[in-house]
Order: sequence, then structure tokens, then C-alpha cells
Amino acid sequence: MNQLTKRSKNYSKWYNEIVVKSGLAEFSGVRGFMVIKPYGYSLWEIMKQKLDKMLKNTGHQNVYFPLLIPKSAFSKEKEHSEIFSEGCAVVTHSRLKKNKNELIIDPESRLQEELVIRPTSESIIWKTYKRWIQSYRDLPILLNQWGNALRWEMRTRLFLRTTEFLWQEGHTAHSTEKEAIKEAKKILNIYTDFSENFMAIPVLQGIKPYMDKFYGSEKTYCIEALMQDGKALQIGTSHFLGQNFSKAFDVQFTNSNGKKEYVWSTSWGVSTRLIGGLIMSHSDDKGLIIPPKIAPIQIVIIPIYKEKEKFGIINDMVKKIINLLEQERIRVKYDNRITFTPGWKFHEYEMKGVPIRISIGPNEIKNEKVEIFRRDTHEKIYISWINLNKLIPKLLNEIQKNIYQKALDRTNKLIIKSDNYEDFKQKINDNGGFIFAHWDGTKNTGNKIQEETEATIRCIPLSTEKEKGKCIYSGNPSFQRVVFSKSY
Amino acid sequence: MNQLTKRSKNYSKWYNEIVVKSGLAEFSGVRGFMVIKPYGYSLWEIMKQKLDKMLKNTGHQNVYFPLLIPKSAFSKEKEHSEIFSEGCAVVTHSRLKKNKNELIIDPESRLQEELVIRPTSESIIWKTYKRWIQSYRDLPILLNQWGNALRWEMRTRLFLRTTEFLWQEGHTAHSTEKEAIKEAKKILNIYTDFSENFMAIPVLQGIKPYMDKFYGSEKTYCIEALMQDGKALQIGTSHFLGQNFSKAFDVQFTNSNGKKEYVWSTSWGVSTRLIGGLIMSHSDDKGLIIPPKIAPIQIVIIPIYKEKEKFGIINDMVKKIINLLEQERIRVKYDNRITFTPGWKFHEYEMKGVPIRISIGPNEIKNEKVEIFRRDTHEKIYISWINLNKLIPKLLNEIQKNIYQKALDRTNKLIIKSDNYEDFKQKINDNGGFIFAHWDGTKNTGNKIQEETEATIRCIPLSTEKEKGKCIYSGNPSFQRVVFSKSY
Repeated sequence: MNQLTKRSKNYSKWYNEIVVKSGLAEFSGVRGFMVIKPYGYSLWEIMKQKLDKMLKNTGHQNVYFPLLIPKSAFSKEKEHSEIFSEGCAVVTHSRLKKNKNELIIDPESRLQEELVIRPTSESIIWKTYKRWIQSYRDLPILLNQWGNALRWEMRTRLFLRTTEFLWQEGHTAHSTEKEAIKEAKKILNIYTDFSENFMAIPVLQGIKPYMDKFYGSEKTYCIEALMQDGKALQIGTSHFLGQNFSKAFDVQFTNSNGKKEYVWSTSWGVSTRLIGGLIMSHSDDKGLIIPPKIAPIQIVIIPIYKEKEKFGIINDMVKKIINLLEQERIRVKYDNRITFTPGWKFHEYEMKGVPIRISIGPNEIKNEKVEIFRRDTHEKIYISWINLNKLIPKLLNEIQKNIYQKALDRTNKLIIKSDNYEDFKQKINDNGGFIFAHWDGTKNTGNKIQEETEATIRCIPLSTEKEKGKCIYSGNPSFQRVVFSKSY
Repeated sequence: MNQLTKRSKNYSKWYNEIVVKSGLAEFSGVRGFMVIKPYGYSLWEIMKQKLDKMLKNTGHQNVYFPLLIPKSAFSKEKEHSEIFSEGCAVVTHSRLKKNKNELIIDPESRLQEELVIRPTSESIIWKTYKRWIQSYRDLPILLNQWGNALRWEMRTRLFLRTTEFLWQEGHTAHSTEKEAIKEAKKILNIYTDFSENFMAIPVLQGIKPYMDKFYGSEKTYCIEALMQDGKALQIGTSHFLGQNFSKAFDVQFTNSNGKKEYVWSTSWGVSTRLIGGLIMSHSDDKGLIIPPKIAPIQIVIIPIYKEKEKFGIINDMVKKIINLLEQERIRVKYDNRITFTPGWKFHEYEMKGVPIRISIGPNEIKNEKVEIFRRDTHEKIYISWINLNKLIPKLLNEIQKNIYQKALDRTNKLIIKSDNYEDFKQKINDNGGFIFAHWDGTKNTGNKIQEETEATIRCIPLSTEKEKGKCIYSGNPSFQRVVFSKSY
């Protein structure tokens, strides 16, 4: 059988293997680009569908802006143009031509101005908002885009860091600062709800320290989650952009008193990176564990038989069961392939993290019972098939809660305080975790701590209270603890 | 009021205006690229959802392949690489850097091999299929991708021809020729069903003449529709690719007898171009007409009141109506903005092509009746609001049928035969249409007719019978009529 490297042995190798062996994704022939396979894409589709509904219910509409952005548009917001230090894809020509058996660039097709594949769309969108916004009546604008984006990455990992990624990016425009900040926080709460209640990933809400905020923003709100290896992963960000983009693109509106003002704005996004977080939050040495609410397959049914004549009887019973379950809107798969053994299939769907497996053989038929296997706890139970439509939705809920609770317990154990640097270093190295410690607020201290421990300031948490203390590194005064962690 | 240019006066201008004034899309600041606005995107979302369901019901799964394709991959299938004669976007560098106040290309970031933004994904997908396919057990592979693609276009028109477009592209692999041809035809039937029964656009099924087939294919099946100005629009294509790509990428499988064979394949797609076809099929001088099955808003409710105190009573009644309609899964919008007059709103939703408008004022409240306006026929009827939940679904069906029937009648009138060239030229110039005529099968004749009349061979229809005749141009023998038309 196709076993995974154990997490305890090599966490990073375990991760790379599980992505490929569960059929979520693989690297393509193009460096840094991945192929999202059918199972991985169906997971993304369900996640999209759930989050999209939450965004639409709060008044957001979807749109589509161009993939390519003129270089000059990026220069407008000075700080934002720094995004290119991270790398991007520059389009310079619009034609290839044949040269013997080869294709070469047609030099005559050089573009007058280079175009860049969007690393994020603020600059193209604000070019357009200038046309759309004149009066306070045109505000707010609450738009969202599902699409691809590209940032050149040197070290790539499937889902966690790929040159091209899929995501949603929201871009809103408001008439007041207060309303824009409220929007940025509202989105942070939506992301939190989505992460905790659908993906079963507990998160910490916070604000990025000033040196790590998004280029072009005033404040970056974020949610951070703790992976099984004690490292943090940034799940999503929501930026309050102030008037930076409206000033850069000269977007003013006439307020209700007839005066001109610059527009206030936000932007926010989550990406296919979420899938990396999902994997690292819940999965085990046997494969993925996917929370039922977003599982592409919630239940797999596997027939167990030796004699072929039994197959027909099993099929009939399964049909009835599928019918019962689909009435409850449960996503069921019946794997009746004869080219694979039941044992192979058991292994396969454990690897794929299907929450419930039902197996049905001659004994089950005789007793009118089925065997139910829970992926999260490895428990087996036997129940009468006639009760399945009542029991299964309850069980799926229970599994969803259990997966979340397990992640929450694990996270809570690693939410720790530290008040001296030696203790801090010890804790970071032992088990990692979110370490709440005092920081003097300087970039220099942040850099030093990172150099010496690999830990960075993940965020200034939104929920904790002010507390006077001394910076664990410099001993200088501090007014609030911040959260340190090693991270992805 | 914001009137449209009349179709009879300037059809092309009417089209450009209607796209913008109805809020579907507009050109962005980037040449040839459009912004799909919320109303246009919600239309595309519904179309996607319906077609996606049809594709999934026939066993297709969604995936995601890289946006960028190495230049060398395109050279593999010789004919396919011709696709670049049409223009493409070539990525040559991976970084910009600051130079004073400007961003310039970082010359050190020159890529070893140029990457091309996908004009279509056969070459990257077949690179991957080589890894996935070993045995007949791995076949068929039935994959589809929703995404963006890019072909450099010199003359662009919103939706009809844009440099970047959104689409779905299917890519399937099969063990036999027969199965691959069956798949290509199955998809053509799905596209036909979608076009006729959802978009209400009657189509003609055919095969492209050999000189117009897709680069790299053996046969291109297509559906063609007739617009209101008598010109044809290609709605969708489904290609039988033979073994061209499996040979180019060396993808062989072991058949059930243990022998190696090259894989057979298909590819197929429809794009945001469909929206252009939708507009030109049904809309009138007052704006869009959208068939109910794909209308983002199926019903708009508009309150009519002079005294403010009446507003509350109207709101209460509308709430009840919305509740009734949403139980029937009808997409309703209540436009209760006080910043716009009822007259402005009537005009606005006629422009947006909302199938049914309901208006409610004090008289309607008193009589417990509402005024219903049908966008397709401009009829007004008054009915008791208590019957709305029964009547509205029926009315939406009737509107759907009526829109289709109108397009069908219009199309049928312009399906004409011609047996001599003078008559042919006259007909093409008078009203356009699908002209069934004999052709000698040579590219040269096709070109001459195009030069002299602007008409091209749209397809060799699938449904008509063999019929001996003489080419209208050369007089040489022919065995079947083909379909000529001017086209988009």
C-alpha cells in the first residue's frame, strides 16, 4: 500500500506527499505552477460556493476586471508598487512566429508599454472607479472578483505558495473613513466565520504590525491559524486602504453638502492557500481529514462481496440508501468499480479524507444493517439502514464539531505567554505555538528576533487588553502583548 | 432619457450602446480588455451554473491548469502552433524595479524560456496527460476548466471579440476513435440544448470546412446562430482531435490486449462571446431582452407613490409578494430607492431586459391587484396578488417560449436556398441569412466568394441530406449544400 511519511518523522515531506496522494494537486511542468486535480478543484468549488454566499448576503457583487495591468498604473500608488519586489510576470510582446521548426518572439510585436499579470487588482480597479464615482449616491461600491493572480515565487509549495493562485479579491469604496473601517472588520468576521464554521480551523484575529501591512494600505487586519507542527499560517487578510488609492488615482466624490472629498476604501482576499491550511490543521498519517460541510464526498459507499451474484442485491440496497441520503442533500459516492478491491478502496478514501464510509456486504444485507466508519475517530458502528437518513446528518454535524474541537484544543494548548527571551526561545523551539509577548514596537527588534529564532510577529491581537510590560528583547516599554510564531 | 440608437439606423452602434447602457460591461483602460460589470457577471454566473450542471451530469469534472505555457510546448503539435499567427501575450521577465520615479523591467529577470498566456490549454494539458495515462483503465478522462484565456485581437468588440475572454474548455482522452467522436458530438448536443433551451437561441449544427477547422483538430463541429441583422455568430465549437495531440506529446496507453496505442481526444469550448449572441438575438430598441431561465433578475418590483405615508403600506405588501415568489425560487428584486423616480426605474429595467416588472401603488393596494408588465411583448395585465405564486412561474415559462419562438421564426425566414451566384449575392446583401448553396469543396472558391460578398462558409450542416448539384461559383460538381453567411 501507498503509505505516507509520518508527520512526526518529516512534517514537510508528509505534507507534500498527502497533497499528491490524495489527488488534490500536483506540480505542472511549469516551474511554480500547479495543476489542481478534480478532487482538489471540487473542494475549492464548495469552499467558493459557501464563501460567495456569505459575501453576497452582505451586499457584495461579483465582477471581472482585466488580467493584464499597464505598468504605469502600478506606479501611481508609490508604496503599492513595492509589490513588485516580490516578482511578477511581465508581458512584452504580442506574437510569436515560426523560424524553421521553432517558435520565436516576433520582434515587431513589442508592446509600447509593458503589461503585468495582476498580482492583485487595486491599480486596474481604481482606474475604473474613477469613471464610476462622482457623487455620494454612487457609494458604497462593494465588489468582489473570483479569479487567478500571479506573484513570482522562488520557493514554491503546493497550495501554500504557488506562482499562480486562485482567489477572491474584494475592492470596496466608501464615503467615510468609519464606514470603510467597518467594512474591513466585517470582512474579517466573515473570514473568521468561514474558517471556523466551515473549514473547522480556529483562528486568531489581529492587525499586522506596521512593517508587515499590505503595500498601499493603512491597516491590515488578518486571521492566523496554528498548524499541527506549531507554525502559524495566515488564513486571510482585510485591508483598510484609507484614501491612498483614491488620491493616487484622483477619485473624488461630491458629498451631500456639495463638497468634493477623496473616497475611502478597502481590499481583502483569501486564496487556494486555504486548502494548505485545511490539510495541515486536521489531517493525519493515513491521509486527509476534511470537515463534512466542505467535503466534496461526504459519504462513500463500498460494496463488499466475493460471489458476483451477491453484487446485484447489494446494488439494489445501495440505490435505496443513496436515495434516502440524497433527499437530505448529502453528497454521496458509490464506488462500485470491480477493478479495485474493498481494501484498496478503504485506503483510498481514508487518504482522501471522506468523513464517513459505509460498507455493505452479504451480512449487512441479511441483518438490514450497515457498517459505518468515521474518518475522524476511526470508530466503527453498525446501524439499521432504515435509520440512515436520520442518523447521518446528525453524525456529519458531530464530526464537523469534533474536527473543530480537536483543532481548537490543540491550538489552545499552544497559546502561551512568555516574559523573558530565554524562555521565549525555548518555547518557540520546543513546540512552537502562538507566543504572546511584549514588543517595543520597532522594526529592528522584530528583525533581530526573527534572525535569532525564525519567529515573526504574526499580529497585534484584536481581542486582548492593553497591558504594560517590557519588550522581551530590548527591555523597552510596551503597552500590549503581540503574537509571535514561526510561520508558513 | 438615455435612448439607444435604433437598430434600423446603425446596428453596430446600437450593439455597443446597449452593452454599456444596460450595465453589462465596458472597455477598461487596457486596449482590447473589458470590465464585466456586476449585472453582466451575474448573467455569466447563471449561464455557467446551468452549463456546468449539464457537463457534470454527463460525467465531466472540473480542474485547473496553469495560466502560462512554455513556448516549447506549443511547438509540439505543428498545426496547433499556428494559433499564434493570431497573436498572444508573451511573458519574458519576472520582475520590475524602480528607476527614479518609474518602474522599469529588471533585465536580470529575463526568463530562460518565454511563457505564453494560454490562448487555449491543449499543450499544457497534454503534457500532464502523459503522466496520467498508462493503461486503458485510466481512460476516459473527461475534464473541463472554467477560466480566462487570451488571444491578441486587433479589432475588438465587447463580448464578441476581446483580447481576454472567460470560457470553459473541455479536454477529453479516450481509448477509441469511435468513443472520441461520440464525445465531440455529445458536447455539441449539450451546447445546442443549452443555447436553445436556456439562452433561447436556435442554432444550426454543422462541421467546419477543412480550411476553417481548429488548428490541431481533425474535425470541428460547431453551432451557428443567426443574429437580427442577418449575420451568423459561431456559438460554440467541439473538436475531434484524432491522435494529433497524443502523438505530439507521445501519450500511449496499454489496451486490454496488452498492446500500446495512441490516445484519442477531443476539446471544446464556449465563452463570454455567448453574451454577445444573446444580446443580438433578442434585444430591441428599448434595451436587452433576457430569457427568464438565465435572467439575473426575473422580476423587478417597483413601488409607485406620491405621499410618503403610503410607502410603508406598499413595503408590507411587497414583502408578502417577495416571500411568495422566493418560495417558487424566483429571482426577485425590489427597487425601493427613493433617489430615483418610477419612470426612471421603468426605463432602467427595460434597458436591463428584466422579463417581468410588477408595479404597486395605492390603487393596487386598494384593489389587491398588481400591474404586471412583460418586457418581451410590452403587454400589461392586472392580477390579484394572491395568485402571483401560481401565475408567475407559468408566465416566465411562456416568456421563455415566446422569446425562443420569435428568434426561431426570424431565423427560419432567413434559411434560404440559392442556386445561382447573382441570386446569392442579392440575397446576402438584402437580408443576409443562412444561404444553403453548392460549393465545389475548394479553399480557392471559398476565398473568392468571401472577397466578393463577405460571406463565408459557416458550416457543412449535419442534418441535411446529400444532394448533387453544381458549385454556385465555379460550376464544378458538388455533393451537398453548405451554409454561407456573413458573420461576426
